[in-house]
Order: sequence, then structure tokens, then C-alpha cells
Amino acid sequence: MLENDTICAPATQSGGAIGIVRVSGPEAIEIVNSTLSKDIIQAKGGTLHHCEILDNDGIAIDEVVTSVWRAPYSYTGENSVEVSCHGSGYIMQQIVNRLIAVGCRGARPGEFTERAFLSGKMDLSQAEAVADLIASSNKASHKMAISALKGHFSNELFSLREKLLNITTLLELELDFSDHEDIEFADRNTMLKLANEIDRKVVKLTDSFKMGRAIKEGIPVAIVGRTNVGKSTLLNRLLHEERAIVSEVEGTTRDSIEDVVDIKGINFRFIDTAGFRNTTDKIEKIGIERTHRKISEASIIIWLVDDEPTVEEISNMKSLVGERTLLTVLNKIDLIDESRFSHMLKISAKHGLGIDNLEKTLYEAAGIDSITENTIIVTNARHYDALIRSHYALERVRSAIESHLSADLVAEELKDVLYTLGEITGSQITSDETLKNIFSSFCIGK
Amino acid sequence: MLENDTICAPATQSGGAIGIVRVSGPEAIEIVNSTLSKDIIQAKGGTLHHCEILDNDGIAIDEVVTSVWRAPYSYTGENSVEVSCHGSGYIMQQIVNRLIAVGCRGARPGEFTERAFLSGKMDLSQAEAVADLIASSNKASHKMAISALKGHFSNELFSLREKLLNITTLLELELDFSDHEDIEFADRNTMLKLANEIDRKVVKLTDSFKMGRAIKEGIPVAIVGRTNVGKSTLLNRLLHEERAIVSEVEGTTRDSIEDVVDIKGINFRFIDTAGFRNTTDKIEKIGIERTHRKISEASIIIWLVDDEPTVEEISNMKSLVGERTLLTVLNKIDLIDESRFSHMLKISAKHGLGIDNLEKTLYEAAGIDSITENTIIVTNARHYDALIRSHYALERVRSAIESHLSADLVAEELKDVLYTLGEITGSQITSDETLKNIFSSFCIGK
Repeated sequence: MLENDTICAPATQSGGAIGIVRVSGPEAIEIVNSTLSKDIIQAKGGTLHHCEILDNDGIAIDEVVTSVWRAPYSYTGENSVEVSCHGSGYIMQQIVNRLIAVGCRGARPGEFTERAFLSGKMDLSQAEAVADLIASSNKASHKMAISALKGHFSNELFSLREKLLNITTLLELELDFSDHEDIEFADRNTMLKLANEIDRKVVKLTDSFKMGRAIKEGIPVAIVGRTNVGKSTLLNRLLHEERAIVSEVEGTTRDSIEDVVDIKGINFRFIDTAGFRNTTDKIEKIGIERTHRKISEASIIIWLVDDEPTVEEISNMKSLVGERTLLTVLNKIDLIDESRFSHMLKISAKHGLGIDNLEKTLYEAAGIDSITENTIIVTNARHYDALIRSHYALERVRSAIESHLSADLVAEELKDVLYTLGEITGSQITSDETLKNIFSSFCIGK
Repeated sequence: MLENDTICAPATQSGGAIGIVRVSGPEAIEIVNSTLSKDIIQAKGGTLHHCEILDNDGIAIDEVVTSVWRAPYSYTGENSVEVSCHGSGYIMQQIVNRLIAVGCRGARPGEFTERAFLSGKMDLSQAEAVADLIASSNKASHKMAISALKGHFSNELFSLREKLLNITTLLELELDFSDHEDIEFADRNTMLKLANEIDRKVVKLTDSFKMGRAIKEGIPVAIVGRTNVGKSTLLNRLLHEERAIVSEVEGTTRDSIEDVVDIKGINFRFIDTAGFRNTTDKIEKIGIERTHRKISEASIIIWLVDDEPTVEEISNMKSLVGERTLLTVLNKIDLIDESRFSHMLKISAKHGLGIDNLEKTLYEAAGIDSITENTIIVTNARHYDALIRSHYALERVRSAIESHLSADLVAEELKDVLYTLGEITGSQITSDETLKNIFSSFCIGK
């Protein structure tokens, strides 16, 4: 599966002071050397060399610094060279073109990290954390990615698999003695307890996915309320109050543009909803249905009011919100007698009153503070899928034990769990197709 | 003038696979070391170190590679460290924040290069070439910047100043012997010849500025012609024909957006003009005046026609164009009998016919092919200004010699030339103000 050619790609965005072109593969040092004004063939790994990189006519493309890495002590585990040039996109492209002309292949997105995985420098979930780390844009997403890169998730999976392997070994021992029907090396009660314990951990990881997803994409918040209650004003206030407007992020699963705001290091994704009022008008009804659909996407709902809601409204809203967090917020406190409303957050979106408090409440509702550096949160849909399948496989294990099935059948189900958990770290992945899919979502040069 | 503190700044754009934070100054190694999981205090210059950079609580911000440079063998001439991290803007900012917390100062734009200049690693015109190199976006601008960085311009100036210094020395020798009125160490005819020779070179450099400017900003091309002759179609064709649309560049000296297209490695800036027709209508006249003004900004004018121009039109156009390049181009050759028009380029903008040929003609009209790696082209307004002043000072030198003024007066004028030429390379610059102005146009981290 290891490809044997030498690859190159720009590894920085263009337009900065410095640009880097990355080269890796068995011929990396030789190929780069053939373009330089200085000989680096004998250079030790971990050393830097100032020289010029030359075009085909021997004319300088740029003054550069080359970093030399020798296998296996490099990111990819192969011989590698990083060419550090001036950050012009044109220059970086000229260098890539030149390296391709003398024997490199342009790297696919993520191919450097793919090679790091294939040569055993990291497992698959760590490799995926690299992409998350590069994409991390705030405290929460950064914390999760660095934890995954450092292998906390991998270690947890490793320890679960170790335990499973122990039982499987005992079961296989039983099979060797299968003439003696009454021999049970693996006590069925202990096994059941262990399966339950492992399943609890798997379910906990699975449950963390919803939060992981929200942290990555922004925690979805819907601002709902009657027309003219000030929803747009509040949205604008939340957007402009914050210095760190993350940018308008194209909704990944929907067709609208949504505003993402960083509040105390967490991204909140505000979902635009039309106002609703009590009406029988047909067109209005469509608007209301659309609002309901939007609300169903949110995990926190801000219900903005400027008067006491009716009993009917409260009842409707409760059924709409279900188990998600509802924040009822009274707006326009500059105009109305707020003392009548005791159990609400109170703001004036227009004048910026009470916004700090609202943000604090949003932050707390997100429940991020419970995350420490060691908290493992699943953020990757591929991992989530494998965990769900592990959970079902574990249920089959339990039912096999409880139904007193024979050791070989239980062992089969256990192997399924081992396999699906192994998919996450890549110890069970052999399909090139799957790998290509994983690494194709990386940026080029990584 | 040398500042003694240690500075840091991100040196790459965020969002790539790799990001770099650059640190330079007497404490660079110590300060960075205090944030790392590994000791680099004893590290040799030119070496790379894989480790973690830690926050104030000892928790990893990122896995990084640090490059250690020791004075004077670094870009700035000072101790320097480059921290190579994952390319997330958030991570780079966290690293900068951390370094500032432990003793760095955030660098001003261009401050690394300013320090390189101040410690004598490069002269001022080379330092300015660094900024041009980073901004270079095609073959022509890259060629000019690399030539300046390699010191071709500096060397030319150095050799001119050497010659001037020789005469000045001889003149000063005469002054020492000023009792003997008839002694002339410096032959006045030779001096005059030399002054003329130097002035010719200065004027040649000055003349190159127009081309340098055009290459940097895009060679201005106006497409003019009657309404409905197909100007917009041609413009769109030129824009879309090329894969390398450079982007819409905000005109630096005007209020309109202009389209810059890279044709064979040269940027052409297409100036939008309204169509003109023969009319006495007042509003139309304003449009025509505007068109005339636009044409005056262009150095190449494409006159697009779909019929034989009238004698009056030809005469008007000739007076309008003056000495600049006029390309008369017949459009719509799919519709009309082109055999009637012998002396024109022939195209169909709509169907893309003849566009290659038009581009080739534009490229030739730009006169770039005469530029070699060693051609010196002045691209910097500050240099241009100094050269113009040198030229006037040289005229005063000549007139002083021709008027048989005394050696001390001639020497004074010569010193003026030496001074203004010296401003370009910075050997005569002492004003902090001037330096700040120059380096403030740099990007951060360089």
C-alpha cells in the first residue's frame, strides 16, 4: 500500500512573509538537491541550509532555507525536505513546478499525513486530528483536536480492545478444549460484566458526538419569537458585540447562510427564523412550518418576547422545544415595566442591555466548561459510525452470552466488536478506498 | 537605532497545513525555550527540534518544530527561532500570545527585514526587494524582484558611487593644495565626461521606472471604440480566455475597479471606457471626456472597430494616442467581409477568433522580452525620486565644471549626488522616520 514515489506540495497559504514547499519520499533529498545552489546530499537530518533554488537555466527562483529530515525521524517517516521561500504564490508554484520537472509528483490532499499513518508514525484517529487541528478556530475545537492528536482517544480505544482481546483469547482456549464440554476458562458472568462495562464506555463516546459536532460546526441556536419582537436586532447585537465574528459560514447541510459567533471561545451558529404569529393565513402557515423545521435543528432556543406569553404559546413552545434548552428572554426593557416578569432573562437588544448576561447563559447552556484536556469527545462522523456499530455488536455479544451460546459463536461476535473499534485507529483498515476518502478531506501539503 | 528587544509575529498566512511564528532578538532562544517541552538552550544554529509548545499551565498548545538560528548567521543577524506549527490561525495566535506573555514584543510590519538592514545583512534596496518578491505574482514582477534582491541594482549604484568618490577625492586633494592655483589633479574634461556617463546611467534607470511601475501594477490597456462595437465582449473574452485571472485589483490612483489579466507572465490592466459616438448631446460629451481621460492613463490603446473608421476618427484617434501604442482591431469578422480591411488585427470577440494573435501582439507591445535577469528596472517610487534628484545634482555638477567654478564648489555638488544615490541603498539614511515609512508597507512577520 506504501507508494514509493516522492511527492511535493505547497504547505502554507500564499501571501505571507514565508512560504513552504514540502517534499517527502525516498528521493526527496536527492531531488531537491538537484535544484539547489548548495549541496545537501550529505546533510544530517534536523539541519537547516540557506541557499538558492534554481530554475532549469540555473537562474535563481528564490533564496530559500531547506530543512532536511532523514527517515524515520520525519513527519512522514520518510526522507523529507521543506523548502522555505518568500511567501508569494507565484514563487511557491514555480518551485513546485520545478520539483515536479525533476522527478516529484504533486501530492494529493492529506498525502503527507497518509504516509505518516502508513509508516506507523500515528494511527488513523490521530491523523484525522491533524486535519481538525488545522481547522480549529477557537478554544473548544482546539482543545478537542489537540487531545485527539495526543492520542487520548486512541489510548481509550486501545484499552477497550485490550480487554476484549483477553476474553477472546480465553474463549479460544476453550475451543481448543472443546471435547471437555464443561470447561469454561472465561467465566460467563465476568464476561457479561465486562461487555457491559465496555458498552457503557462506547455509549459515552457515542453520546459525546453530538457535543463534538456542535463544537466543530458551532452550537446551533435558534432565535424565535413574534414578528417585531426584535429578533434581527438581537442577532445583530450578538454579531457586532463580539470582536471575533468568525465569518459567515455556509451551512453544510442546508441552503442558507448562517452567522457564526465566537462567545468566550465557543462557536455559536445562529439560525435565522421568520417570526410567527397566530394566523390562519396560508402563506403564513408555510412560514411557521419553516420556523418549526429550523427550531428542530437547534440545540438551544432563545424565545424572545416583549410581553407575557399566552398559556397557549407557552404550551406550544414547550412541545416544540422538547428536551432541548429553552431560554425565554424579555426584550425592550427600556420600554416596558420589567418588574412584571420575574422568571426571565431581561435585555434591550437595541441598547445592548443585558447582553453580557445572555452570553454568559448561552455559554453555560453549551456545557463546555465540563471539558478538560483529557475529556474525550468524538467529533468525527466516521468514528461515530464505527462506535454505533461497536455498540450493536456488543449487544449481540451480551445476548449470545445470556442465551448460553457456544464459545465459538460468542467469540465471533467479540471479533466483530474488535474489528469495528479497530477501524477507528486504522488497525483494521485495509481498503485503499477508505483511506483515500479519509485523506482527501485534508488540505494540500498536509 | 538598533532596538534591543525580542520580537515575534506570525510569518505565514493562516489556514495552510503549516504555520510559522517567527521570533528574533537577543533573548529569542531563551524566551522560546521557556515555553517548550524540550530544552533548546544549547542547540546549535541551523538545527531543527521537534517538541511541544506549552501554555501557562503546561498544557500543549501544539506539537511544533523549532528552527534555531544563532547570530550573526540568521536572516536578521540576531538570534532567531522559527516555530513551525499546524496552520490554524487560532493556534498561531495562541503561540504569539504565549510568547508575548513571556517577554516578546509583537513585531511591527517589516521589522524582521528592518533588523536585517540595520545589522548590515542587506542594503535598503535589497530589503525593499524582499517586499516586492513576496508580492510578485507573475514572471515579470518576479524577475525584477529577484534581480533587485540579488543586488544587481545595488551593485550598479555602488559602481556609480565609486567613480564619483574617486573624483571627489581628487578634488579634495586639490583643495589641500589650494595655494597653487594652477594645480588640477582632476582633469576637468575627464570629469565632465564621467559626469555625463554617470548621468546617462542615472537617466536610463529613471526611464526604466515607467516600465517597472507598469509591470508591478499591470500594464494599462484601454479598449476604446464606438458603442456596440463589442468592447465588453472583448474584455470578457480576454478575462475568461486566460486561466490566470489575477483578480480584480482596486485601482490605486483611481476610484474604479479594474480587471488585471496575466498574459504570458505579464499583468495587463484593462481600463474600462464608455463607448463614444459622434454626437453633440451634452451628457454624451461628458462620457467622451471621461473616455479621453481614461485613454490618457493607458500605455497601450486597443481601438476596436467593426467598419472602416472615418478620416476624422482616424485623425482624432492619432492626436489622442500621441506616442503611445495604438492597436487597431477589427471585430466581428464572422459577420463582415474582412478582406476589405488589410492593415488591422482581425478578431471575433464573440467566437474567440484571433484572440491568440491579439494577445501575442499585446505581449510584444509591452516590450518585456528585452528584460533579462540582469536588466535593472526601477520599480520603487522612493528610488525613482532619489534618482531624479541625483540627475538634477549631476546637472549642477556639469554646470559647475563648465562654468569653471572652484574645486570646493564642484566637490559640494558631487557630494549631493553621492548623498542622493546613497539614499537608495540606505548608506546615507539616518532618519528613523524614513525607515519606519519604508518598512511599514511590509507584511507582518517579514
